[in-house]
Parts: sequence; structure tokens; C-alpha cells
Amino acid sequence: MRRLRMGMVGGGPGAFIGPIHRIAAELDREIELVAGAFGSTLERSRAAGDAYRIDPSRAYGNLAELLAAEATRDDPIDFITIASPNHHHLPAARAALAAGIPVLSDKPATATLAEAHALAGLVADAGLPYGLTYTYSGYPLVREARARIAAGLVGTVRKVVVEYPQGWLAGEGAGKQAEWRLDPARAGEGGAIADIGVHAFHLAEFVTGLRVTRLLADLAAVVPGRRLDDDCQVLLRFDNGARGVLLASQIMLGERNGLRLRVYGDRGALDWRQESPNVLTLHHADGRTELVQAGDAGLGDAARAASRTPGGHPEGYLEAFANLYRDFARQLRGEPGSLVPGIDEGLRGMAFIHLAVTASRADAGWVDFEV
Amino acid sequence: MRRLRMGMVGGGPGAFIGPIHRIAAELDREIELVAGAFGSTLERSRAAGDAYRIDPSRAYGNLAELLAAEATRDDPIDFITIASPNHHHLPAARAALAAGIPVLSDKPATATLAEAHALAGLVADAGLPYGLTYTYSGYPLVREARARIAAGLVGTVRKVVVEYPQGWLAGEGAGKQAEWRLDPARAGEGGAIADIGVHAFHLAEFVTGLRVTRLLADLAAVVPGRRLDDDCQVLLRFDNGARGVLLASQIMLGERNGLRLRVYGDRGALDWRQESPNVLTLHHADGRTELVQAGDAGLGDAARAASRTPGGHPEGYLEAFANLYRDFARQLRGEPGSLVPGIDEGLRGMAFIHLAVTASRADAGWVDFEV
Amino acid sequence: MRRLRMGMVGGGPGAFIGPIHRIAAELDREIELVAGAFGSTLERSRAAGDAYRIDPSRAYGNLAELLAAEATRDDPIDFITIASPNHHHLPAARAALAAGIPVLSDKPATATLAEAHALAGLVADAGLPYGLTYTYSGYPLVREARARIAAGLVGTVRKVVVEYPQGWLAGEGAGKQAEWRLDPARAGEGGAIADIGVHAFHLAEFVTGLRVTRLLADLAAVVPGRRLDDDCQVLLRFDNGARGVLLASQIMLGERNGLRLRVYGDRGALDWRQESPNVLTLHHADGRTELVQAGDAGLGDAARAASRTPGGHPEGYLEAFANLYRDFARQLRGEPGSLVPGIDEGLRGMAFIHLAVTASRADAGWVDFEV
Amino acid sequence: MRRLRMGMVGGGPGAFIGPIHRIAAELDREIELVAGAFGSTLERSRAAGDAYRIDPSRAYGNLAELLAAEATRDDPIDFITIASPNHHHLPAARAALAAGIPVLSDKPATATLAEAHALAGLVADAGLPYGLTYTYSGYPLVREARARIAAGLVGTVRKVVVEYPQGWLAGEGAGKQAEWRLDPARAGEGGAIADIGVHAFHLAEFVTGLRVTRLLADLAAVVPGRRLDDDCQVLLRFDNGARGVLLASQIMLGERNGLRLRVYGDRGALDWRQESPNVLTLHHADGRTELVQAGDAGLGDAARAASRTPGGHPEGYLEAFANLYRDFARQLRGEPGSLVPGIDEGLRGMAFIHLAVTASRADAGWVDFEV
Repeated sequence: MRRLRMGMVGGGPGAFIGPIHRIAAELDREIELVAGAFGSTLERSRAAGDAYRIDPSRAYGNLAELLAAEATRDDPIDFITIASPNHHHLPAARAALAAGIPVLSDKPATATLAEAHALAGLVADAGLPYGLTYTYSGYPLVREARARIAAGLVGTVRKVVVEYPQGWLAGEGAGKQAEWRLDPARAGEGGAIADIGVHAFHLAEFVTGLRVTRLLADLAAVVPGRRLDDDCQVLLRFDNGARGVLLASQIMLGERNGLRLRVYGDRGALDWRQESPNVLTLHHADGRTELVQAGDAGLGDAARAASRTPGGHPEGYLEAFANLYRDFARQLRGEPGSLVPGIDEGLRGMAFIHLAVTASRADAGWVDFEV
Repeated sequence: MRRLRMGMVGGGPGAFIGPIHRIAAELDREIELVAGAFGSTLERSRAAGDAYRIDPSRAYGNLAELLAAEATRDDPIDFITIASPNHHHLPAARAALAAGIPVLSDKPATATLAEAHALAGLVADAGLPYGLTYTYSGYPLVREARARIAAGLVGTVRKVVVEYPQGWLAGEGAGKQAEWRLDPARAGEGGAIADIGVHAFHLAEFVTGLRVTRLLADLAAVVPGRRLDDDCQVLLRFDNGARGVLLASQIMLGERNGLRLRVYGDRGALDWRQESPNVLTLHHADGRTELVQAGDAGLGDAARAASRTPGGHPEGYLEAFANLYRDFARQLRGEPGSLVPGIDEGLRGMAFIHLAVTASRADAGWVDFEV
Repeated sequence: MRRLRMGMVGGGPGAFIGPIHRIAAELDREIELVAGAFGSTLERSRAAGDAYRIDPSRAYGNLAELLAAEATRDDPIDFITIASPNHHHLPAARAALAAGIPVLSDKPATATLAEAHALAGLVADAGLPYGLTYTYSGYPLVREARARIAAGLVGTVRKVVVEYPQGWLAGEGAGKQAEWRLDPARAGEGGAIADIGVHAFHLAEFVTGLRVTRLLADLAAVVPGRRLDDDCQVLLRFDNGARGVLLASQIMLGERNGLRLRVYGDRGALDWRQESPNVLTLHHADGRTELVQAGDAGLGDAARAASRTPGGHPEGYLEAFANLYRDFARQLRGEPGSLVPGIDEGLRGMAFIHLAVTASRADAGWVDFEV
Repeated sequence: MRRLRMGMVGGGPGAFIGPIHRIAAELDREIELVAGAFGSTLERSRAAGDAYRIDPSRAYGNLAELLAAEATRDDPIDFITIASPNHHHLPAARAALAAGIPVLSDKPATATLAEAHALAGLVADAGLPYGLTYTYSGYPLVREARARIAAGLVGTVRKVVVEYPQGWLAGEGAGKQAEWRLDPARAGEGGAIADIGVHAFHLAEFVTGLRVTRLLADLAAVVPGRRLDDDCQVLLRFDNGARGVLLASQIMLGERNGLRLRVYGDRGALDWRQESPNVLTLHHADGRTELVQAGDAGLGDAARAASRTPGGHPEGYLEAFANLYRDFARQLRGEPGSLVPGIDEGLRGMAFIHLAVTASRADAGWVDFEV
């Protein structure tokens, strides 16, 4: 069984996320990075290609060239991965789908909700695989949490608290990574809500199996001069009546990447933290608290399949990311079991961003969440 | 210097909080429990008095008798402490103040906001010391946090996250402690918001030195059949423009007493958890994270004065509580430095409860917080 | 039932441990400090007595005066507590016992093993209660651990790791508390081994129910100029064949009071840390890890009886200490159930100190542990 | 710059460590697995080769065939990695070195000390790169700890505590991974001491820069029927006079992979745990405790170079392992800066195992450690 060939859009010199996509894609040897339109010029793209150690002739000046050239090869790419700022997501996906190439895209799906609807149409028309790298859904214990809730082990979910504190934008300047995220022309409608809030939103829905039906958003640009939100407080209602709160902020100084999900049911509860991803705390109705760890004998199939090392050998962000790539590879091969979010989750994420931004701006109170 | 003589209202057989008040009051030997109207009958009061090992003749059938009898003694009580359900707070305080006796009261100040205004008038008229046992403000590292923020060490506060998760009311029945708290006739206007939310509210204001000016409340009775809220989500604004969120819930199954306060400024941040009260996490603007521990050499005067053991010898809830009693004793003696909250904080707390309950019920969105 | 009347030896001005004894003794209102020979002069004793707020006439210049004077009163002391440096333990206990007064003593029992044997004879002859304040055995979850092991829940104990790291003597000078501990004339045979190692030793035996039968000691005075050990590494064998290691050090810079006990059996294991005393980690044979917390519904009688607050309201060192005093009070009243260690444990502790010191000095390798 | 081509010895079907070597080797795209003698038969080797997705013609029946066949190719392997049980290490390395192929080997270097001396001669004669995968030395914060100590930040090291608790061999049977480790014919002289103790030994020397000069070993086979040690307690002395203790055990039920290193100097101390590898706790002489985290701005070059993600995105065991492979690749290319241990560390490790086993068996007390 040959490795799938991946092309990359974005991930050029200085990009943090490109090499991470590359490592994640290749970790299980099911995928190989072979081509890319990495940078905004051929020169920059080639420099990145050299850093990735790919064939120099397959570092292209832009995606159109890549698609055209690859189509003529005996060993063309099997899919592209989009690792560029949000405003590139739609055009890149559109071009790839038009060329018959499946797409795996960084989140959020697009820069605006309108774009997301357009993309959903394109994906439906193309009939090609489309996936979104909501990385945190790749962690073994996130999948364990999801499986346990689906099996009824917390009973009826009553309350969800999901928070995503970061502090790296607490100051005025924060380098290249910050630059495009703070620019509406490139980031789109949302700031922190689109950069990290949507991760929290997806995680909550992914793990609980519930869907948000109403929300009340309180977003702000705290650091003077910002045009996009950098601090978000959102109250939630889910389709089973459960209550929730979502916090996402990039001005919580000192916080690194503190995504945390707590789910409380009438028969149990669970608590997971991204910065200690190999532990899942369970609260049982009889008062016992249990620490479930990656590699434990009692884990379910999804968590086992998502681990590569024995218990006590920490796996982290890259391995979680690799689980999404492995899932997507299987999807491309027509195998079952992929948990990679698709365009439906993409649309929901964009609707969440849009609704949070607009409802907050309008001080609209509780609003219905519909896609 | 003699020990101050304390009378207690409430704290009868089966009450959790009475013995805790007794221990806290006496811990530093500045106060001695000598009398009480502990229970609803003389018989019950005497049983409690025996358990407290006080002179049986000073266990009274009700507060009126206590005040009358004590007034005739050579060694009468110096103050009363109120450890009974909320609906007793106002009548007990009124009677004591009328008899010229200072009052230390369990929180919240009263059962309703209207009562709190009445009480404020009584306190002002009486010109006597009145204090409220917001226990958590007695922890050494809470006082350290307060002092550091006052000294400008986090810069301008931008964001406050205070949460108070409990799970003991996740089930339908939870014993005597639950009973009166779920009954509007005894608990007053609020359920979880009055029982624990007001602690969180006070802690946030106490530590930051800021005042809440607006809020948006989302309260619910999650467990079927409840007439008072058991789950609260409240968005906040402070007088310097800072944003905040307050979570308080008694249906977060598995949570014990997880009060936690996080304060983020533009130059630093801090994080404190009641269940690990002897550690205060500091985030510095240069990226360093520091763990400050009770007993550390670098602590300020307030934290040092609030500790009785060397570092590494854990102090807990009782010692924090004792710090409030010690403060109040000093206040009674006319000494400076007491941090015991008074009727102003009591009024603010009741206004918070009232506003949260009424605004949530009316789905009123953002409302101004005024006392 | 009246409060028992306690006299104190030691605990004079500047002493850390005296006020702690006082708080612990009085916490449950079963005991009252009424008299003391607190300091080395009448003047110093009176100053301390005033700080304790006792009747000035009952602050005596020395123990002999105390015993003589108290014997003439209608309300004499019921027992004395010894809170003075080690070299005072034997003479103070001897005097009290000779006067028919029960004794509760700070650990270790005496300054030397020879003294301990003498004391054991005195206690036997007197037929009076004698107890030792191995404080850490008073923690609720230590008692829970002991009960679980006794009930066979870890199976056969195979391995014990007990460590007691402190750092406060890492520097050359450390104040009054350090002074007598570093002086063989006052501390006795051992330095860190007697100050904290013996706590670790007792804890291991108390919790496991096993007895040390052999040991190999490696002690040293690390800080130049010291005459007593400040760093101890001791290998152990227990009477069931289990293996163990005991670490005790006062030069592990940055450590506060890190007593920790881990016990591994063939069917389970447990882990307890003094600095987070309200959590006990259990490892089950099927791979599950459970966090047991003070106040949990599943706790046994001993742990329940040793707690005064509901779960999530931290209790600490003072409350653990108070549990020993409460036990001793019951013992004095002839009630059952006391877990206060007595002269047997005292002798074992002194034999441990003596053997560790002498075997290490002689580089004797493995030596039999006999009392 | 082309990727280096790697051949693997071992890592056949069912082996845990083979795929981990593969991932680690390829993570940074500097190395590619192209060939292997994975199993004990051609059939098994081919099955493994298919799982690794390598060219079927390069899965060989044994190492001799691999070396012969690869030597005839235009694109032969650049080095081999040895991922087979200990008794294969020497013959595999000998064959490779004889064929002019550099070697990266799993630890310990060989099965016996005698073999290690033989191997040292071979490596010296061959003049080829030889490295050992002491994985834990690849963690960013381990390298940070090493750099800080080298820079004098803890002052003179006085005390080292290194422990490596595991519990997976607490029961009688533990599957294929256990089988060869418990068999002297395959594992060599040591059991737990060779499997994990030597990791702890290397880590202590690697981080402190000190060398062990004396030791006292107490090893045992706790589970009945075992011929090799499964529980180790070793006292240490270092070349600067520092004292230490090393604990390694595979019968500490419930422990997963709890390698932890604590180093105490006269001016500071540090604490690192493998299961939370992205945090390094620092104790400063002034009493401050600092948490250093991977990705922090204040990290030194070595730690920065060893991270691939921003702070808060956990990296783990695979990434640490990959750091050794990356180092080795650079070494092969003649670049500076590799921290991969070589044959000297291999000899030291084998001498440690041998001395611990023989000294413990002979109850020899303190023995000199010489290589």
C-alpha cells in the first residue's frame, strides 16, 4: 500500500504551522509531502521546499501552477492540505476541488460565513473528500471522552464548560503569527473567536455529541487599536437543554494554550486539559474520582487506536494532529472510521464565529444558532 | 488582655457550620464561645451547648432570652455570631444591635435585598461593629494576591475569571444542609447564587479592588423541581472597564468546593484555588511563571500575619476562617488592620444576588449594578 | 464533660511549636491550656503565658515549680505536653510521671536511645498514659491509608518509599529553630534523622502495619561545620520481607515539608503527600488510578472521624495535630480508639535514630534493627 | 541536502520499539527508513517491512544479507539503527561496523560489561560514528536543566535523587515485551537495572555533568521465579562529593513511566518529571519557585532547538527521541552540536549495570565505580 502524496498550500518560510502539518501528515508513513505552493513567490516557495527537502521542481509559485503541473505527472498529488491564513482557504479549496483534488484544510473553514456557504456548495458539487484539522479532536483521551459520553457514562449532559485561554496577544506586538490574525482582511470576521474559540466550540460539540442551539456572546478587542476581538465570553444552550459557557481569550497573560473541557452529566462528569492531554479525570456519581491515562488497559478502541506509545510515554500535539491526517488518509482510501470533521462542522464553526461576532456587536442577547 | 466572649445564634445539633464557627473563633485564643441560642428549642439548644462544652445555663431557648440574660451578667457576651439560615440573619442582627451587641454574621447579609437595606440602616443607627464572614477572604494567599494587585504588580486588571463549582446538589436529595438552601422561605432570593456565587463575587472584588458595575446573568434551576437556582453563569464589567465572568454551580457533579480566581492584567496575572490554598501562581509579563507558597520569605505583611505555621505545613479553611474572627476581635478592641467585610460588602452582595436573580428571570441582558 | 487541663513545658517566646501545640490541643474544646513552664526563666515564662492568655499565676519558672504548685490546686492540670528541645524530653517526662501526671511529648521520645530505655522503664513503672505527637499520623487520609492496607486492599506490601525533603537548612544560618537542632547537646544523637527522618520512619510503620527489621544507613553532614547529619538515605527491610527506602534531608533547597509515602503491594498501591494532605492516590491492580479525597463518601470510620469539614474545605497540619490531642484526651478518659503512638513507638524511633547514626558512621552495611 | 538512509535491525512484528524508532528517525525529514532486518526470518522481516511501507526488496532475512545487499546499491543505507533485544546489540554493531556502517543503538550498549568492552574496541578501531538512544536526554527541558547546571545556576550540586518507577512487571505475566527482558540469555546481566535503571543513571550524569564514583546497590527479584532484578535501590556518590540515590523498579504497581530527576545545589535546585516533560521546576536560593515551560522565552539554545511547537502545545516522548536522531544525523554529516551519547556513555552504563548487579549479589556495601 503506497503512501499518499500530499501537496501543501502555505507553510512558507517563517510559518509555524507548515512544518507541523508536514510532521503530522508523515508521522504514520501513510502520507508524504511531495509538492507545495508554500510561499507568495516562486523564490519563497522554493526556499520552503528545500527546507522540507522535497524535489525542487515540485515547489511551485502558486496553487494554479501546482495543480496544472501535478496533473501532468505519473505520480501526482493525492490531496492538498491548506495551511495558509484564513482568507486563502476558500480560493485554495475551490481551485483544488475544481481540479478534482481532495482537500484537508486548516480551520476555520473560511474567512467569512458567506464564504463557508459557498465552499459547502463546492464540496457538495465536487463529491470529493474535504476535511478540517480541528487538531484537538485527535487526542486519544478526547476520543475516549467522546466514546464514554456516547456510551452514556455521564448520563444526560447538563453543563459544559469549555475554555481556551492564551496570553500571547496580551502585548501590543507579537510577531508574524500575530500579524495576519489581527487583520480582518486576512483573518476574516473573527479574531480570537475564529483563531481559538472555534476550536473550543468544535471540541464541545465533538465530545458531547450535542449541538449548540442558542448563544449569547460578549466579545471585545481589549488591547487598544485592535479591530478584531481578542477576548470572548459566550453563554451556550445545547439541543438537549444543557447549559454551557465558552471562554476564549488571547489576552490572558501567562496562559499558554490552556484549552480545557469539562462536561457534567447527571450520572458522571469528565475533565480534560490540553496541556496535560494524557490524563482524563472522571467523576463518578458515587463520589469516586478516577484518573484515566493514555495507554490504560481500560480505554476504548478509539483511544487505543489514537496512541502510538505505551502508557507513561507522553504523546502530544503533533501526535494528535497526526491522528487527523491518518484518519483523512483512510477516508481517501475509502476505509471507515475517520473522525476528521468535514464541511458540516466547517459550516457550523463559521456560523458560530459569525453569530458570536454579530450578536456581540449588536448586544443582541440570546440568539438562535442555526446553520 | 482578656478573651472576648462570644454568643452564637444557630449552630444547633446537626449543623455543619456551627462547630466550624466555634473552632475558627477560638483558634487564636482571642475569643471564647460562652453562650448561644443554638437551636429552635431550649432542649435542642442545651444539647448543642453540651456538645460545645459551655456552661449549660448559657444555652438559651432563643436569642431574646440570651440577650436579656447576658445583659444581667458580670461577664456578658461581647458580640454574637450568626450561624443560622439566611432568613434569621436580619432578625438576629436587629435584636443584637438593639441590645447594643456587635454582630458577626454568616453571609449573605440577609435573605433579600430589601432586608439588607433595612439592616444597613440598623447598623448605621447602632454605630456598632458589624462583620460578615466571607471566609475565603481570610486565606493568606488571597490577601497576598490582594496586596500584590494593590501594589500594581499585575498592572491594569483587564479580565477576571472567578468560578465556584460544587457538585453536592447534583442529585435530588442531599440531606439537612441542602434542605434550607433549596427553600426560598429560608434561603431567600437566591439558591447557588446566594450560597456560593456571592462568595465568588466578593472574592473578585476583594482581591482586585475593583467594583462590578454591570452584569448579565444566566441562572437556572437545573435539577427538576427546584425553586431556586442551582447553576449560575454571570458576565461582568468592572469599574475600570475590565471584563469578567463568574460561574457558580452546585450541580457540577464531582466538584467539591472548587472556588478559583484568576486575574489578568496588562503586566501580570495570578491564579488561586481554594482547594490548594497555599499556592498562588503568578504569571509575569516576561513569561516567567512563579509559584508563591504560604510561608515563603517574599510574602507581604498581610499574608504573613494570616499564617500560623511555617511553609509546607498546610493551613486550610478553618485557619482562613479564624483570620476573620481575629480581625473582628481586633476591630472590637479598636485596633486597626481588620479586613473583615462589613455592611457595605453585605449590601453589595445582596444587590448582586437580587440583580442576578431578577435580571436572569427577566432575560434582561446587561444591567447596571448599583447598590 | 469538662475540658482537660493541660500544662506545657517549653513553647516559650519565639518558639514555633508551642503555639501550634496550644491550637491543636484546644481545637476540639476537649482540652484547655491552663499552665506552663514555658521558658527558661520566670520572666520569659510569664511573657509566654501572657501571649497564651493564661492566668499569670500559672506561668511557672520551671517544671518542678509547676508540678508542685498545680498539685495544691482544686483544678490542677490533667497532663503535661512537652514542647521543648529533645534533651528536655526525658527530664520533663520523668518529673511529670513522678508527680503522677500523664505526658504527651514532642517526638523524638528523648535525645538518645539510652534515655529512651530509661523513659520506657519510667512509663512502665508509673502506669500512666504517655503519648508522642507524631503529627503526620493524625491526617485523615493517612489513617484511611492505614485502614485500607489493614483491610488487605493493596495485598501484600512489597515496597515502601518514604521521603521527607526539606530545604530550610541548606544555608549556613537558619535562625533559632535551626540552632538547637544542630547542637548535639540539645538535639541528641541525630540531626535530620531525628528531626524529620523519625517522622518518616513512624509514618511508614504506622500506615503499613509492618515493622522494620534491617536497615542500611547513609547519613552525612553536608553543610560544612555541622556536627549532626543533615542528609539521610536509608535502605530498609520490613518484617514481611518488603523492601524500602527512606530519604530525609534538610539541605534539599527549595523543598518545604515534602513528606511523602508510597506503598506498593501485589494488588494495589497508594501515594500520599503531606503538602496536599487531602488527596490520597490509589492504584488498583486493574490499572485504574483513583483519587480519594478527604470528605469523600467512601472513606472509612477513622478518616471520617479525623475530619471536621466537608469535602473540598481543606484541613491541614493543625487539624492533624489536633487529632492526636483528641485521641490523647480520650485515652486519658479511658475511652477506646486512640491512635496516639506511645512509648513503644518512642523506643522504636530512638532505636532507628541510634542505629542509623551509628551504622552510617561505622559504614556497617546492613544491620539488624532491634529494640 | 538529501535525507539519510537508515536500515533497522529488529523492530519486527509485535515489537513496540521498532515503529517508535521509525517515527523518531523520520520526524524531521533528515532520515528515512529504507531497509531492515526486522525479524528472525525473511517472512517476518517482510511482514514488518510492509507495515513500515518500505520497498519489499529491502526487507532482509538477517543483518548479514542486509549489509551485503545494500553495499551493492547506488543508494545504500547510511547507518543502521539497532532496535532488538540486548543480546543482539554487540553482534549487530560488530557486523555493521565491519561493513563500514555507522551505528545507532538502543540502550544498553550490550548485554554484558565484557561485551561492552569488546564493542568499545570495535568502535575505536572502526573510527565510525556510534550512538546510543538514551531517549530521555532528548527532552527540551532535560537539555535546559543540563545547560542551567553547566552555567552554574544551582551552584555546587550536593544531592541527586533520580527515580524510575514502573509497575508493568508487578504481575507474573506481562506479554512479549516482558518475556525477553526477564530472560538473562537475552536481556543480559541486569533486569530492571538494565532496562530502566541505566536510563536513570545516564540522565543523572547527563544533566549534572558529574560522574558517579562509588555506589551501593540493593537489587532484588521481587516477583517469585524471576532470575533478574525487578526492583533496585542504589546509593550514589559523585566525583564532586555529591550524594545521591537512584531508584528503579518495575514492580511499583500503578506507576507508568515515572522517571524523575531532582538536583539540589547550594544555590538552587531543579525537578523534572518525564510524565510532565514540558515543565521544569526551579527552586531559587531566595525561596522563589519557578515553573519553566517548553516554549518559554527565557529558554536557552539547546532547549529551543529541541522544540518544534510553540509553548503550550505538548511535545512528548517521540519528539524527544527524534531529537536524538536529528543529532545523530548531524553527527553523520560532520556537523557540530550533537548530544547523542556514544560508546563512552555506553561503557559507563554497562559498568553501572554490572557493578550494581554484582555488588548487590555479594552484599558488597560501597564499591568504587570505575570503567
